[in-house]
Amino acid sequence: MTPLELNSGDTAWILTSAALVLLMTPGLALFYGGMVRAKSVLNMMMMSFGALAVVSVLWVLFGYSFAFGNDVGAGLLGNPVEFLGLKGLMADDPSAGLPVMAFVGFQAVFAIITAALISGAIADRAKFSTWLIFIAIWVTIVYFPIAHWVFDFTLTDDSGAVTHTGGWIANNLKAIDFAGGTAVHINAGAAGLALALVLGKRIGFRRDPMRPHNLPLVMIGAGLLWFGWFGFNAGSALSAGNTASVVWVNTLVATAAAALGWLLTERIRDGHATSLGAASGVVAGLVAITPSCSSLSPVGSIIVGALAGVFCALAVGLKYKLGYDDSLDVVGVHLVGGLWGTIAVGFFATEAAPAGVSGLFYGGGVDQLWRQAVGAFAVLVTSFVITYVIGTILQKTVGFRINEDDEISGIDGAQHAESGYDLGGAGLRGGALLGSSSSKAPSTIESMSDKEVSA
Amino acid sequence: MTPLELNSGDTAWILTSAALVLLMTPGLALFYGGMVRAKSVLNMMMMSFGALAVVSVLWVLFGYSFAFGNDVGAGLLGNPVEFLGLKGLMADDPSAGLPVMAFVGFQAVFAIITAALISGAIADRAKFSTWLIFIAIWVTIVYFPIAHWVFDFTLTDDSGAVTHTGGWIANNLKAIDFAGGTAVHINAGAAGLALALVLGKRIGFRRDPMRPHNLPLVMIGAGLLWFGWFGFNAGSALSAGNTASVVWVNTLVATAAAALGWLLTERIRDGHATSLGAASGVVAGLVAITPSCSSLSPVGSIIVGALAGVFCALAVGLKYKLGYDDSLDVVGVHLVGGLWGTIAVGFFATEAAPAGVSGLFYGGGVDQLWRQAVGAFAVLVTSFVITYVIGTILQKTVGFRINEDDEISGIDGAQHAESGYDLGGAGLRGGALLGSSSSKAPSTIESMSDKEVSA
Amino acid sequence: MTPLELNSGDTAWILTSAALVLLMTPGLALFYGGMVRAKSVLNMMMMSFGALAVVSVLWVLFGYSFAFGNDVGAGLLGNPVEFLGLKGLMADDPSAGLPVMAFVGFQAVFAIITAALISGAIADRAKFSTWLIFIAIWVTIVYFPIAHWVFDFTLTDDSGAVTHTGGWIANNLKAIDFAGGTAVHINAGAAGLALALVLGKRIGFRRDPMRPHNLPLVMIGAGLLWFGWFGFNAGSALSAGNTASVVWVNTLVATAAAALGWLLTERIRDGHATSLGAASGVVAGLVAITPSCSSLSPVGSIIVGALAGVFCALAVGLKYKLGYDDSLDVVGVHLVGGLWGTIAVGFFATEAAPAGVSGLFYGGGVDQLWRQAVGAFAVLVTSFVITYVIGTILQKTVGFRINEDDEISGIDGAQHAESGYDLGGAGLRGGALLGSSSSKAPSTIESMSDKEVSA
Repeated sequence: MTPLELNSGDTAWILTSAALVLLMTPGLALFYGGMVRAKSVLNMMMMSFGALAVVSVLWVLFGYSFAFGNDVGAGLLGNPVEFLGLKGLMADDPSAGLPVMAFVGFQAVFAIITAALISGAIADRAKFSTWLIFIAIWVTIVYFPIAHWVFDFTLTDDSGAVTHTGGWIANNLKAIDFAGGTAVHINAGAAGLALALVLGKRIGFRRDPMRPHNLPLVMIGAGLLWFGWFGFNAGSALSAGNTASVVWVNTLVATAAAALGWLLTERIRDGHATSLGAASGVVAGLVAITPSCSSLSPVGSIIVGALAGVFCALAVGLKYKLGYDDSLDVVGVHLVGGLWGTIAVGFFATEAAPAGVSGLFYGGGVDQLWRQAVGAFAVLVTSFVITYVIGTILQKTVGFRINEDDEISGIDGAQHAESGYDLGGAGLRGGALLGSSSSKAPSTIESMSDKEVSA
Repeated sequence: MTPLELNSGDTAWILTSAALVLLMTPGLALFYGGMVRAKSVLNMMMMSFGALAVVSVLWVLFGYSFAFGNDVGAGLLGNPVEFLGLKGLMADDPSAGLPVMAFVGFQAVFAIITAALISGAIADRAKFSTWLIFIAIWVTIVYFPIAHWVFDFTLTDDSGAVTHTGGWIANNLKAIDFAGGTAVHINAGAAGLALALVLGKRIGFRRDPMRPHNLPLVMIGAGLLWFGWFGFNAGSALSAGNTASVVWVNTLVATAAAALGWLLTERIRDGHATSLGAASGVVAGLVAITPSCSSLSPVGSIIVGALAGVFCALAVGLKYKLGYDDSLDVVGVHLVGGLWGTIAVGFFATEAAPAGVSGLFYGGGVDQLWRQAVGAFAVLVTSFVITYVIGTILQKTVGFRINEDDEISGIDGAQHAESGYDLGGAGLRGGALLGSSSSKAPSTIESMSDKEVSA
Repeated sequence: MTPLELNSGDTAWILTSAALVLLMTPGLALFYGGMVRAKSVLNMMMMSFGALAVVSVLWVLFGYSFAFGNDVGAGLLGNPVEFLGLKGLMADDPSAGLPVMAFVGFQAVFAIITAALISGAIADRAKFSTWLIFIAIWVTIVYFPIAHWVFDFTLTDDSGAVTHTGGWIANNLKAIDFAGGTAVHINAGAAGLALALVLGKRIGFRRDPMRPHNLPLVMIGAGLLWFGWFGFNAGSALSAGNTASVVWVNTLVATAAAALGWLLTERIRDGHATSLGAASGVVAGLVAITPSCSSLSPVGSIIVGALAGVFCALAVGLKYKLGYDDSLDVVGVHLVGGLWGTIAVGFFATEAAPAGVSGLFYGGGVDQLWRQAVGAFAVLVTSFVITYVIGTILQKTVGFRINEDDEISGIDGAQHAESGYDLGGAGLRGGALLGSSSSKAPSTIESMSDKEVSA
């Protein structure tokens, strides 16, 4: 199976896909940022940018080794020192079809977005410095090992001898998770739930509407996420061929169907189809098709996607019933959507699809179904428990939640000394009015420019 | 001509291009959304997202078969049942240079953006549910057949025997429409004109300035459209080689020249070069180079692009003279730009370009010119007439236009129970002032969050 | 070394990269646009769009020939007439691995972004028409020649005979500037400094805080810049292989480290880590890794990136101490970051990286260090001096700076007859209040829609 030479087409596709997935994190920053109130948009976006900064560095230093080093036992962890600092991976191996550094980059951006996703559960109330510490710990003891479980495949050479040993879900359990329904979405969703419980509800939860301050921003974010997700899913084929092409089409159509499912649910329940529903439906569909994109037909993708839209639209209301403040619906969309997509493989997989596996509804019995369920459950429990412990320790030591005054006045001013918008200039229609009031703006909020003057 | 094996480079390029074209629809949502007033930004964006959702699903169910099934007679329609639900297309055909599913995905996003483009003509006044029904009908009886006419090429095997029969414009008329000047832009422009006439003018047309509420959003949109358009045009080569490369450069330079042409026209006429003009000029240039990008030289592209900027800048004023409310200039930019670009092939095509055809100014006589004119005219008339009929039937049955009160109070609140912006938080400079007034906001506008609380 | 046939994977990657780099200019428009006050956002964005329009056309007409024509003497300039109008470059050369037009397109977008970068130094105060004239002159006598110096490599055929002669920095000095630390960033930074001095300080510099009016826009911009920069750096390999893959990872991790470096510097100095700091740190890291991405290890990239974040965070305060109004920190980020990244190659280059060169800290002595320093210095001085002369002549002839009244009332109204935002509609919470004041808006500001009515 060793390729004889570099495949430049595959390399082009993976480098492109990696860039697409990188863009998903700024896209997420917009999606989340638009949903919060104007006084916390910057902090919301900064949590995603913080994930970009921290996780990238840790990935190079030791994360790749934790996830893709040779297994050190039971399929639970890669050899932590094998590729420390990516040592030895820069050399040009002419026999590799895909340069290993393209794979390193592609997997890096998965780690980043997973950490960033969690932030939606704790909007408006987390200390930024503690958030950075949290993600450093979290990717190290939760994400990197789980990525090893799910994404690290055992490799053999032409003679069948094992050259690399991978993780237990991919190789022993043989659950199908093509692009990260478990490792990314269930993982982030369960972690989000844990942190939402540790940090507690926002002041005014239920009472205060906390309307999205900028829905066009939410829609830009959803658009960029969809765009980037083609890299996420179709790039996970690690080659530019038939599998990637089938996955591409499934990623398109499941997402579209999920948006319709969400909008229809809203329309029936509330009488209106909203833009927030369309954007959320898009993400729900993308989440559900992530594990299943290689094992469904396009028509199966429509069914799984549409149901994802319905299920998640219903699930986002749970937080009000159960009383946890999963602020931007990481649980309702990523945990529920990820569970559904992972389990759906067990029902809707068709042998005609690239993965070549049959689910229960396609004559495959329950064999694949329980593998999917075990994989999903294992990741859910692991992530929830460890995250809860990490969060609690941080809350009790350095403190995780900001104080009440800062939360009421707004986290942007309190944590970053900035405000998202300053539209009180003469260029704004009605600006004269706004301009006259800007002198009343709270003096605790100072922009960086001021700082620089005094620096 | 049958390739012997998968070409991973071509596949990488087409999957990338398809993702780029997918992004154009959210890009269009921003471009259009920024141009309307703040009270209708969400509905404007939702019309594009609705096209994404509805058209993707129909494309998989039967649209691809309508467009690219074997011709069922006279080059007018593909076999509607041949690829129902994309059946049989997932199999890995090792002899295909490009997996057919890559082509399926690439063509899907063309159908989506064409439907979305129409929405600009009916800003602020269309019922969202009727819009979704409209696009479902419209793509089925207008776009899918016309895509067959223009994009479905007859194929032969190595012995010259016909293995697939395509549409009449591509194969009988042999008009050159490389990436969709007729099927996409003239089509959407004519349909937009028809709907603008069916729905009638907005309240306050001419009298009320209806200023763009967010010009930076318009410019982001134009930037994303330009970016995505490289996939649209250069991806239409269906391979990553010399043709795609020439098309790439022509797409860059024609667009740049059109922006200059529009800005110069404005400057001379109005005394100022505007950002709306720059963004519109970009789109006008992209439209005009779409059909012609494979048949012009880079210098020819500058000429065609610059004239597109001038022509469209002049054409957008027509609606005020003739009295149709083509709100965001679908006619002025897409119909006029599409006609110009399609006809310009007949004048400016050079044999040195990849298409290898000479226009009138390059010694080719009028042969190509009349072919271009016939193709353009056929699509224009077909699209206008059928769209007018569809729109009229919908208006008289389920109703297409919203009522007057809703139009005045704003379509976002009326149709989606949302408002685009809620900047009245403490985070906004001058926010204290805004915040104090938000209790006066009309109670008919409720955000989704409220709904969820009560759900 | 002549390839025997087209490499479709390389072509796919370069066409993709070129599109990514194209997107950087709209991304820059957002990054810069969000940083200025609301009354000048459109002009700021228009300076970038103007660069897109003007430079693209000149590149096709003669710019490519200036930069990549056969050297006409001493490595200073390409033959200005060799490829006028890109003549002869459309032909399909079956022996070229990468079609020349893909290279033409890829290099075009480098010229565009370099010109656009300069605009950040002269925010709020430049006549738009003079800006367009300036960039036309500037790219012709500054950028195109310098691109020849840095990017035009001498080529030989299989027998070793020279088939093309390139520029002095690439071939004689042999400084390493993989993707444009000198030609793009030092060049734009030095030019920005020169123009900031020629145009003088804004009214209210130091006294007026001039806060960024829309920080989410700045962050979108930074996100798009990062995304596009993968094309900029990894595309500069001109092939999709190991070099591009290593460069991709270095571009990720240096940028992440720089964001951390900047945030840490702010935190220590000011007590807060800001979103403007995160966005600026991203760009500083991208600038520093641009010249060095092919010669560092990933761990070296972390070091160089982190120091870039620290150095640039300190450097942006210089303008207040020295009294030049480099409004958006083109000097502090691009000149300083570009110098650091270029010089850092001399210290941190490792033979294990694709460039195969050792810097001072990796046993390579000072040989590479002085080459880097000479290259950086030559570009800095050339760009500063010539730009200062061009700017001065323009200021004294057609005028470069707008008048005081226009600067105070806002450049958007004065130069473009537009305002960025018109949020006074019913759709905005608190809109009733805003709406009532919009009649007080200055009557000199008229939107294009008004113009069209009267046209």
